[in-house]
Amino acid sequence: MRALSSPAMQRALLTPATTTTTSTSFLPLRPPLPLPNFKFHKPCSLFTIRNCSSIRVKPSSEIRKNRSDSDAADPKLTALRRLFSKPQTAIDAYIIPSQDAHQSEFIADCYTRRAYISGFTGSAGTAVVTKDKAALWTDGRYFLQAEKELNSSWILMRAGNPGVPSSSEWLNEVLAPGGRVGIDPFLFTSDAAEELKQVISMKNHELVYLYNTNLVDEIWKESRPKPPNKPVRVHDLKYAGLDVASKMSSLRSELVDAGSSAIIISRLDEIAWLLNLRGSDIPHSPVVYAYLIVEIDGATLFIDDSKVTEEVSDHLKKANVEIRPYNSIISEIERLAARGASLWLDTSSINAAIVNAYDAACDRYSQKTQNHESKHKTRSKGFDGSISDVPMAVYKVSPVSLAKAIKNESELAGMKNCHLRDAAALAQFWDWLETEITKNRVLTEVEVSDKLLEFRSKQDGFLDTSFDTISGSGPNGAIIHYKPEPESCSVVGANKLFLLDSGAQYVDGTTDITRTVHFGNPTAREKECFTRVLQGHIALDQAVFPENTPGFVLDAFARSFLWKVGLDYRHGTGHGVGAALNVHEGPQSISYRFGNLTPLVNGMVVSNEPGYYEDHAFGIRIENLLYVRNVETPNRFGGVEYLGFEKLTYVPIQIKLVDLSLLSVAEIDWLNNYHSQVWEKVSPLVDGSASEWLWNNTQPIIHERI
Amino acid sequence: MRALSSPAMQRALLTPATTTTTSTSFLPLRPPLPLPNFKFHKPCSLFTIRNCSSIRVKPSSEIRKNRSDSDAADPKLTALRRLFSKPQTAIDAYIIPSQDAHQSEFIADCYTRRAYISGFTGSAGTAVVTKDKAALWTDGRYFLQAEKELNSSWILMRAGNPGVPSSSEWLNEVLAPGGRVGIDPFLFTSDAAEELKQVISMKNHELVYLYNTNLVDEIWKESRPKPPNKPVRVHDLKYAGLDVASKMSSLRSELVDAGSSAIIISRLDEIAWLLNLRGSDIPHSPVVYAYLIVEIDGATLFIDDSKVTEEVSDHLKKANVEIRPYNSIISEIERLAARGASLWLDTSSINAAIVNAYDAACDRYSQKTQNHESKHKTRSKGFDGSISDVPMAVYKVSPVSLAKAIKNESELAGMKNCHLRDAAALAQFWDWLETEITKNRVLTEVEVSDKLLEFRSKQDGFLDTSFDTISGSGPNGAIIHYKPEPESCSVVGANKLFLLDSGAQYVDGTTDITRTVHFGNPTAREKECFTRVLQGHIALDQAVFPENTPGFVLDAFARSFLWKVGLDYRHGTGHGVGAALNVHEGPQSISYRFGNLTPLVNGMVVSNEPGYYEDHAFGIRIENLLYVRNVETPNRFGGVEYLGFEKLTYVPIQIKLVDLSLLSVAEIDWLNNYHSQVWEKVSPLVDGSASEWLWNNTQPIIHERI
Repeated sequence: MRALSSPAMQRALLTPATTTTTSTSFLPLRPPLPLPNFKFHKPCSLFTIRNCSSIRVKPSSEIRKNRSDSDAADPKLTALRRLFSKPQTAIDAYIIPSQDAHQSEFIADCYTRRAYISGFTGSAGTAVVTKDKAALWTDGRYFLQAEKELNSSWILMRAGNPGVPSSSEWLNEVLAPGGRVGIDPFLFTSDAAEELKQVISMKNHELVYLYNTNLVDEIWKESRPKPPNKPVRVHDLKYAGLDVASKMSSLRSELVDAGSSAIIISRLDEIAWLLNLRGSDIPHSPVVYAYLIVEIDGATLFIDDSKVTEEVSDHLKKANVEIRPYNSIISEIERLAARGASLWLDTSSINAAIVNAYDAACDRYSQKTQNHESKHKTRSKGFDGSISDVPMAVYKVSPVSLAKAIKNESELAGMKNCHLRDAAALAQFWDWLETEITKNRVLTEVEVSDKLLEFRSKQDGFLDTSFDTISGSGPNGAIIHYKPEPESCSVVGANKLFLLDSGAQYVDGTTDITRTVHFGNPTAREKECFTRVLQGHIALDQAVFPENTPGFVLDAFARSFLWKVGLDYRHGTGHGVGAALNVHEGPQSISYRFGNLTPLVNGMVVSNEPGYYEDHAFGIRIENLLYVRNVETPNRFGGVEYLGFEKLTYVPIQIKLVDLSLLSVAEIDWLNNYHSQVWEKVSPLVDGSASEWLWNNTQPIIHERI
Repeated sequence: MRALSSPAMQRALLTPATTTTTSTSFLPLRPPLPLPNFKFHKPCSLFTIRNCSSIRVKPSSEIRKNRSDSDAADPKLTALRRLFSKPQTAIDAYIIPSQDAHQSEFIADCYTRRAYISGFTGSAGTAVVTKDKAALWTDGRYFLQAEKELNSSWILMRAGNPGVPSSSEWLNEVLAPGGRVGIDPFLFTSDAAEELKQVISMKNHELVYLYNTNLVDEIWKESRPKPPNKPVRVHDLKYAGLDVASKMSSLRSELVDAGSSAIIISRLDEIAWLLNLRGSDIPHSPVVYAYLIVEIDGATLFIDDSKVTEEVSDHLKKANVEIRPYNSIISEIERLAARGASLWLDTSSINAAIVNAYDAACDRYSQKTQNHESKHKTRSKGFDGSISDVPMAVYKVSPVSLAKAIKNESELAGMKNCHLRDAAALAQFWDWLETEITKNRVLTEVEVSDKLLEFRSKQDGFLDTSFDTISGSGPNGAIIHYKPEPESCSVVGANKLFLLDSGAQYVDGTTDITRTVHFGNPTAREKECFTRVLQGHIALDQAVFPENTPGFVLDAFARSFLWKVGLDYRHGTGHGVGAALNVHEGPQSISYRFGNLTPLVNGMVVSNEPGYYEDHAFGIRIENLLYVRNVETPNRFGGVEYLGFEKLTYVPIQIKLVDLSLLSVAEIDWLNNYHSQVWEKVSPLVDGSASEWLWNNTQPIIHERI
């Protein structure tokens, strides 16, 4: 699966430390590659998207059919606007982003405020409501869907189209100078809020942090879904490989090195990884809503304690981790500041509520200290014995991100094992589908996807899908983020290419695989495109490179065969994958975007997923997961390590789609070698017709050394 | 030839606008690839070189053998120090860099002040003299040479070795706080001077611009070489392709767009290109010492008018270019400021003397205007009718650099033609050398290089070599910047690899070619390395890529075959080349350095020169020049152009050195196709035994489609 709109991925794909991430995809809105005026310091956020789509479509549209209809107005908007004038609020506009408080890629239903207020259910979008206008920004993937879903009170802002202002620019246009723009500060990263503040200050607007209430929640009331409350579980040490104490100890050395006395971690996968915990709060991601503060001599997990079982409670106690209520995070931050703690803050992921609370508390503390000092001349003593007058924030990217990305032996073992079980499910599935199609059975994209889930769910340790399955027949395969819906989706035809991108969460690991197949006779065009995608896949798979090489250096290997004939694809080639965690994670990536300098390191997991998409015709993607490993090269020039990839995914690639005349001998050998490994590793896990299917689809290509 | 220490190249290889360039190579000091803590905003300058060499060698050494000897002191240093205390000078230290006032890669003898004062003649180095110390910084290429050449009064600073301070750090160590550090402001770019100023300000040192005198020149006196004074010539329109008026007109549109009323150009190749002039002031570069100011309605060339022939004078008059003395540049800059001109300044190339003079004059002007205004309330009117109170500098990279890099049809025709004549000379040379070696004639690297010059100089339109020939036999081939000296160089042996990197300036173009050959029986190791270098060369040569692709995206293509077996090379893969101009030019490059985002554009010329170097054993490099051109691909995904390369260089590659078993069918086809083109294009230009040699060395490899 190509990476979706994970903010973590955005962060990873752009410059390491200084990006401001607001929700949107980093993938589909790609202008002619590479970006013409590429800038290192700006992610393509919903606030800033430019140059990102076709010039033919209209920049924005007022959905409202006629004025009177519009004035009748949306009752939710009316209710929301009524709250604007409350004395403690007193705002002229309110911004409702897609995010939860943790910059999660997938979020719990109770946090889908933007979808609730606007009716638009796509994964990326920002709603802005003023006293007389309501506008929604989304990107090219969702223009059609938004047109359908928004009612007449809304203006659709086609982000990326020429002439479309960013939401902050729009506010500068429509508000009278000196306006008050309200946000829920938990839903914006500190960096994003700062950027927003700066832009709207040009028209003397003030950014107002509404700490105590989310206005959408206030009108949502009873119909708002309950917060998730399923129990947390301990992630077994045999899968985690490292106990919490060891992870904490490494983290604390980093704190000491950075001169900070505590760190706050808000990304849910980082918390889950660090504490060897897993949860079920969010679809596709085995994480739990929480914040974590790690100090030099202790740690506190902020979590709804109804989710904490006795086992988990014991596990945390052993690791010297206290538990506090999720909602007490701000008061604890203030307490830390008052105690003079120098907090490590990753402002690209920590929300503005926390950063602002800490800064404000530090200011108060420093004033108090100064007053105190002027009488007594005493100084507070830091954790390491150093003397400091006032607490100071350390602004740095969270060190947990990189530590989590580099898998240990146990994590890799889990990843390998679950991939084989996943491959067995896929062999059963493909065998089933081929048989059904041969029998002329009519199956929709959703039915096929459901059946795959059925096979997967029978595998040991299966927990969930790792993202919404992309099951695209014919032209739907060309829609990079296609999500088939039961009522509208296509039939998987025997004479069309079928692209299936799917993955699962297992107790021991996470999978993500794409195969493209044809059940009839592919055209020469389809075969040529498939073959060139395959050649790129093989070139990346086989790459060897010196240590300290960032992923983008390898990206061109995956494109060069397409480029030769003037083809390309508008998404990155690889993203990081968590071990029994998020299917998209940073900090590494393999992408045409040059800003991510994170080197690929022994133990990292990445996807290898070149593709080709022909609008209104077909889509092709071939995706395996790989892990980075040191390679024993005959030389080691420069005294450095050389690295390469090892496959995790073992599922046949359809030979019928390969134009063998385009392949080199080495490429045919790669295919044969891969299929022989697939048989060897997966055949013990299947039987019956699935075994037969696997046998048939792993036969070597006999080539006369052409 | 791989790129040397051109500041233009440094600028090109690093971030576009904000680099400060001080002389040093960007190439040989490469740490394990890629740079571990790569930073976009810092070039590897002599002031900042770090992590750049072996850890075994000593960080710095006082050359002085004993104190008393040292105190006897170097008479030049004594004379220089005497000048420190002159009332208008009153400095505590003086920095003598390698540069001329134009950041030229090669410089005229009269500007080799650092070599004069220190005795060290290498191309890169900075001398710093205090009242009681003298130190010289150079990089790993020159440690041995500097040890030999520096006398006992000098401390050798091995830049790049651990623990070696930069020259500014060293000044902060050795000077008492509040010192005055003198420089000749013409010899530092404005950016470099600003950086220096900032570093030494930490110890309250002041950077003193000595405008009116270069202290080294003062002691050099009569023995100082005369400034070059050979006549300038007009570069024929049939080679230039565009007349001066057209170039000026494009430049002026850029000025208008940028809101500036004048630009100062100080890079000598930019001036030569813009005015269709060529000179002979500098070895290897057909340029003339001059400054150029282009205003909206006129232009002024600052040049020693003894070099201006009547033809040139007419040519300039026609283009509406006035002539003024070279030394009047500062007064003209001040006059421009007084007239309220908004000057476009590329502070990464324009020297500190000019930028500072303009800034100071603007300040004076603005004060005067304010005084004036307070009485009369008048305002100056800008060139475009806009009203401005004070002149304002526009700080941007010179637009001439990119315009010059994109060759027009006539420039490309000249490049193609001169490359064929160059190839004819090389065929004659290789035929001669092979014959002599077969006859067991003992020939040194210098003798061989001289003979090559003899063959080249017989070709029509030959003017000069385009850089010092690198003629390296056996282990010398592994010294990337090897310069054989008559008294010490090796014999070109029949049983060693021989690397020859050379180029020429012709009236119609510039060449740069490297071939590596063996006259006996190469080892399997040598053949494998040669073949992998060749495979990288072919991969880059054959690359097709979408428009807007920066060169570094392609760099890995040239390395991947070496990487597979743990080999690599510590220099970039390609540099820009001027058309009858500098052999190294920006802004494009093909390099592992990721900072240069300049896309490759139709018409640019680049070198393709992967290599491999085994210390104390042998060196391999295969270099052709290529030009970028639009490619007719069967598709044009994204509606963009796809680009590829066309060869300029047509000289056989030695098949004896190729391990055919490593090559794919496509690679063998490439070789055969190349050699068939070499024969077709070059054979009409040679006869006799050279023709026979060419025939023998362009025979196809018969392969049984292995």
